[in-house]
Amino acid sequence: MKNFSFLSSVSCFTFLTLIVVFTHPVYLAAQSAKPDADALFLDKIYDQALTDSRCYAWLEHLSLGIGHRISGSVGAEKAVAWTRSVLDTMGLDSVWLQPCMVPRWVRGKAEQIRVLNARRQGSFNLNALALGGSIGGKLKAEVVEVKSWEELDRLGAEKLRGKIVFYNRPMDPTKIRTFEAYGGAVDQRASGASRASKYGAVAVLVRSMGLRLDDFPHTGSVRYDSAYALIPAAAISTNAAEQLSRVLREDGSATVSVRMDCRTLPDVLSYNVIGEIRGSERPGEVIVVGGHLDSWDVGHGAHDDGAGCTQSMDVLRLLKTTGYRPRHTIRCVLFMNEENGLRGGRKYAEEAQRKGEFHLAAIESDAGGFTPRGFNFDGDATVFAAFYEKLTALEPLFKPYGLQFNKGGSGADIGPLKGMKGLLSGYSPDSQRYFDYHHTADDTFDKVNKRELELGTASMAALVYLLDKYGL
Amino acid sequence: MKNFSFLSSVSCFTFLTLIVVFTHPVYLAAQSAKPDADALFLDKIYDQALTDSRCYAWLEHLSLGIGHRISGSVGAEKAVAWTRSVLDTMGLDSVWLQPCMVPRWVRGKAEQIRVLNARRQGSFNLNALALGGSIGGKLKAEVVEVKSWEELDRLGAEKLRGKIVFYNRPMDPTKIRTFEAYGGAVDQRASGASRASKYGAVAVLVRSMGLRLDDFPHTGSVRYDSAYALIPAAAISTNAAEQLSRVLREDGSATVSVRMDCRTLPDVLSYNVIGEIRGSERPGEVIVVGGHLDSWDVGHGAHDDGAGCTQSMDVLRLLKTTGYRPRHTIRCVLFMNEENGLRGGRKYAEEAQRKGEFHLAAIESDAGGFTPRGFNFDGDATVFAAFYEKLTALEPLFKPYGLQFNKGGSGADIGPLKGMKGLLSGYSPDSQRYFDYHHTADDTFDKVNKRELELGTASMAALVYLLDKYGL
Repeated sequence: MKNFSFLSSVSCFTFLTLIVVFTHPVYLAAQSAKPDADALFLDKIYDQALTDSRCYAWLEHLSLGIGHRISGSVGAEKAVAWTRSVLDTMGLDSVWLQPCMVPRWVRGKAEQIRVLNARRQGSFNLNALALGGSIGGKLKAEVVEVKSWEELDRLGAEKLRGKIVFYNRPMDPTKIRTFEAYGGAVDQRASGASRASKYGAVAVLVRSMGLRLDDFPHTGSVRYDSAYALIPAAAISTNAAEQLSRVLREDGSATVSVRMDCRTLPDVLSYNVIGEIRGSERPGEVIVVGGHLDSWDVGHGAHDDGAGCTQSMDVLRLLKTTGYRPRHTIRCVLFMNEENGLRGGRKYAEEAQRKGEFHLAAIESDAGGFTPRGFNFDGDATVFAAFYEKLTALEPLFKPYGLQFNKGGSGADIGPLKGMKGLLSGYSPDSQRYFDYHHTADDTFDKVNKRELELGTASMAALVYLLDKYGL
Repeated sequence: MKNFSFLSSVSCFTFLTLIVVFTHPVYLAAQSAKPDADALFLDKIYDQALTDSRCYAWLEHLSLGIGHRISGSVGAEKAVAWTRSVLDTMGLDSVWLQPCMVPRWVRGKAEQIRVLNARRQGSFNLNALALGGSIGGKLKAEVVEVKSWEELDRLGAEKLRGKIVFYNRPMDPTKIRTFEAYGGAVDQRASGASRASKYGAVAVLVRSMGLRLDDFPHTGSVRYDSAYALIPAAAISTNAAEQLSRVLREDGSATVSVRMDCRTLPDVLSYNVIGEIRGSERPGEVIVVGGHLDSWDVGHGAHDDGAGCTQSMDVLRLLKTTGYRPRHTIRCVLFMNEENGLRGGRKYAEEAQRKGEFHLAAIESDAGGFTPRGFNFDGDATVFAAFYEKLTALEPLFKPYGLQFNKGGSGADIGPLKGMKGLLSGYSPDSQRYFDYHHTADDTFDKVNKRELELGTASMAALVYLLDKYGL
């Protein structure tokens, strides 16, 4: 409960800060006097990003030179050392590693999920990836296809005991924002194993969280409920899901063998990588811009989230090269372990609270390196309405660049900061292609367009600049 | 001058039509009574497009089954026959081919542009494509790099006679809308040959119209001014342009050999492909939705403009499957010869005028199959302001889908309809990647994302529906 009392004191502090910021002479003068100065400065930021950025070259190295980097892996270790070394060259006021213990899950030998003796197609493998955190196992059982929780519960122990449950509810293609479609289907991946285990199932296969029909399985975390036996859980590609479903329709039943070598090893030490420009007026108040440095253990983690990391690093570089001297401390945080634990995000918030650093705002880029569409904003219910009203005054400045402001989720890593009652924001690029690559071996550097990545960097730098200048 | 007097009579007709439309009881009742009905119908259109469209499968056939299709080629002939056969299956009221004579330019043997005896790099080829319409030739000459028209004129005949002019002014990367960057550089490709020939140059090489550094040359039309001798003109890739420029810097001079086998053959007969749903109330008034069926003679012409063609075909199919019965005639037009002559667009407008068909609106999709950002609107100066004011009332309906309305250019093929004083609109998808592929061998089917294409189809269908329902 120590944290709780601390949070209360932060709230008081925040409240006073806000009063000061709202009535601060710099803020008011700047807002009324030079409406065009901001537009000009944003232009400068975008011009700079489109002609002299580093994010794309950095992403190339992170993708092709280092590659995927799941928490606790050699790749993650290299990514920590290399991004730190890059931040070290940027003339920042401080660069440091923030230690945190992270889970270490390893895939081991490639999983094999095999349909046995189908009437038309004989035996064949399904393109599969064990879900992160899954236990391994070797088993063979009949498959039962399930499209809803109601169906699962109706089937119950009688029909599911000893079976493999195959979750085959697709993402809804009619959602324009694909994150909504993801949100409507990912419960199968996250909690499907334990909910099936409750009825005695021995493993689960989950249709991949993707809108496209293709051969790439999408991994991602499984969350076990310790009340039920742990059972192996794997994703199969959307094409494999269609194929398995067809066999069940044609043959009335299907038997599948599962071999998974994955396991969880003891936690290991890793780090958030942090660099900052100290604020000239309010160094104790922080604006964070960040992404997560870990990725899944396939592909390059290019869109998820090498893009967000290299954009965040470049935001600080851009602000320096444009000669801007921030009032608040501007901090780039590359969070470790977003994918399977959020330990980095939690550790960061803990330390921020311990040090009493008020986080005026935190912006996370973790939705891919695609063309900018806007920012989502979120915050503690007690302060958010007032924040958002202020923000709408800034929105027109982004119109020339095609960005809109929305209320909505920000980012997993910055979520733990919410209690500090600053502003949280998720950079929101176009989402149509994100779930083609997300958590797959196909999330590679060549899928990222240089200009689209750079425009994201510029957009984040622009928001940091405006929040720094005007406060909230 | 026959056309002129005809246009005047169209204008009168148009004016009366507009009065009728503005005060038409259906229009007013619909506008005031059911604001939500439109939102619901747009939802239905988008849902349908994202779950049961044909555009992507059609584009696959047009790209992989037929391939590129420059005017007068076998590919173009096949594309005419196949798209007509598809329209024939759709239960439209009429499908027909509209004959037009088109230029026939052939590339012949692959061009070879070779730097000779550079000090460091020896002799090497530059990735090149003859510009469409260029004459062929075989020659060898010194290269002079030019970055502006002022520089060209300053060098003049004294320095340029007998030389190859190398236009190396890049597209401006700081333009957020890449079409602006294209507009600011394409004069080199279009008129560079004749402007150099004026000073006695023997050939021109043009830096490709692309923002990315890569090895794909971008072809496109050259426009000769008949006042000057015709000289060969080719595009070289952006990487090749950088390389050639480096040789000039390092060596002080460079000699290049040019071999181009291309030539222009006599015009041949081709066709616009047209299908329509006849209007239930105003069959003589037409809303066109279209793209251009021809492409350059490399790649698949997937984004340019297979995407626009298959989207336009699917707009009619979508409107039929949603059960909408249009008041006006809705017509899909696949224009021939946009790339190197615009003969199809001109012929279409000519015939429309001849038949006295008022074109209430024409929407063209010719900016790629990318995620929708909006529509550009244009029209004759005498009517456009009033149109645009009306349109702003419809804009909020597109907000859930992320589209905005802008004033701006519409499309080349529908341009000749402007004199008829209807509304012209260019569908405007995200432009960041368009000039990576435009007019290159890399404009292939795999570069098109299914959902992005479908969202474009839905957006165009939605606009057709609203214009049909409310008039202007």
